[in-house]
Amino acid sequence: MADLTTIGFDADDTLWQNESFFRLTQTRFAELLAGAADPGHLAERLEAAERRNLGHYGFGVKGFVLSMIEVAIEVTEGRVTAPVIAEIIVAGREMLAHPVHLLPHARDALQALAADYRVLLITKGDLLDQERKLAQSGLGDLFHGVEIVSHKTPEIYAAIFARHGHGAQRAMMVGNSLKSDVLPALASGARGVHVPHGLTWALEQADPPQADPRYFNIPDLSHLPGLVQALTNATP
Amino acid sequence: MADLTTIGFDADDTLWQNESFFRLTQTRFAELLAGAADPGHLAERLEAAERRNLGHYGFGVKGFVLSMIEVAIEVTEGRVTAPVIAEIIVAGREMLAHPVHLLPHARDALQALAADYRVLLITKGDLLDQERKLAQSGLGDLFHGVEIVSHKTPEIYAAIFARHGHGAQRAMMVGNSLKSDVLPALASGARGVHVPHGLTWALEQADPPQADPRYFNIPDLSHLPGLVQALTNATP
Repeated sequence: MADLTTIGFDADDTLWQNESFFRLTQTRFAELLAGAADPGHLAERLEAAERRNLGHYGFGVKGFVLSMIEVAIEVTEGRVTAPVIAEIIVAGREMLAHPVHLLPHARDALQALAADYRVLLITKGDLLDQERKLAQSGLGDLFHGVEIVSHKTPEIYAAIFARHGHGAQRAMMVGNSLKSDVLPALASGARGVHVPHGLTWALEQADPPQADPRYFNIPDLSHLPGLVQALTNATP
Repeated sequence: MADLTTIGFDADDTLWQNESFFRLTQTRFAELLAGAADPGHLAERLEAAERRNLGHYGFGVKGFVLSMIEVAIEVTEGRVTAPVIAEIIVAGREMLAHPVHLLPHARDALQALAADYRVLLITKGDLLDQERKLAQSGLGDLFHGVEIVSHKTPEIYAAIFARHGHGAQRAMMVGNSLKSDVLPALASGARGVHVPHGLTWALEQADPPQADPRYFNIPDLSHLPGLVQALTNATP
């Protein structure tokens, strides 16, 4: 394998908490609609709405809020009251203002690797929201490049690793989502490192790749510098 | 002035229609709430909500829809019904699916200039929505680079013109918004060309710059290749 020069990091639930805020909001959503639908049914309907709306809204909090409002109207058969909808909007705005909680080892791993590699942030979601989280994270200066994208496809990874590095063959992508971070990065020709997070959004679930020498799985980011070092030593 | 090498174009209401779709939706919004508020008052409240929410939602259709829902709840003092809110959501989804209407001379001007200059698209709004419009416009292949940004500041223009060209001193920005396209581009050191559009969103209004030899105003894009040619000839 070609020498590694470039390492891409996913942001949400790889460097900082994200899904836990969505889950908190979903709990509040279920409480607001407790009289109209049981939580399990509501979660199903919300997932279906998110899936159906993804092509219109893309990833991020604003689309999530619009999907919640849509589901609130559906499950109440049009009887949900305006104050409940106002609460959903407030919950969304609170998500957009929540403080950033870095995940353990995120800063140390980035600092250790930024000295020797081109370190990139590659994330999807609402543009402004991702920029805010990056600014609040205090990690901004460690990145050689930041790419906020609408989709994570092999073509998009290939283009980013060509633009900021030396192509996908010399790159690695690190993230908590097999579906968005690992599988398409592998398909682009890069290495893929899965760092599982306890909570994964239903729309991000996928099976791990079959025996692929470019695929790695680590329990947390403290293991990343060692993995990169081992790969560098192993390169002939 | 240094030789021009790079020309940035705004997208919405510079290359294709945008504000007219927002106005159509606002008319529909006013009809939906005709019993609760007169159109003038409603427009004021909506503008105030958009201004207040800009820091949370950024620019784009999804934030606009959330602001409309918020205002519908406000002006009805919480009595707006769920079916009306569902209509607002549908109107927003239709905006996200509307066909792209190129403005006159957009394609010709771009084609004429793309042969000799680095032509960039620099736009704000929802990431996915702007990507969709670019894909539908059929103009994608003419651009050397595409930047979808959350804000248009002098620093952002300087960074983009450094990344894709030879710096702001050798760049020009073309757009319908004095506030977003012309003034910050001038402040970055670039030339700024204002191409007014009949409809301008209240939050984009600004006064033209005082006597600045790098500021130009043209009635439509058919005048742009001639302006660029004249500037090139005038450069010593």
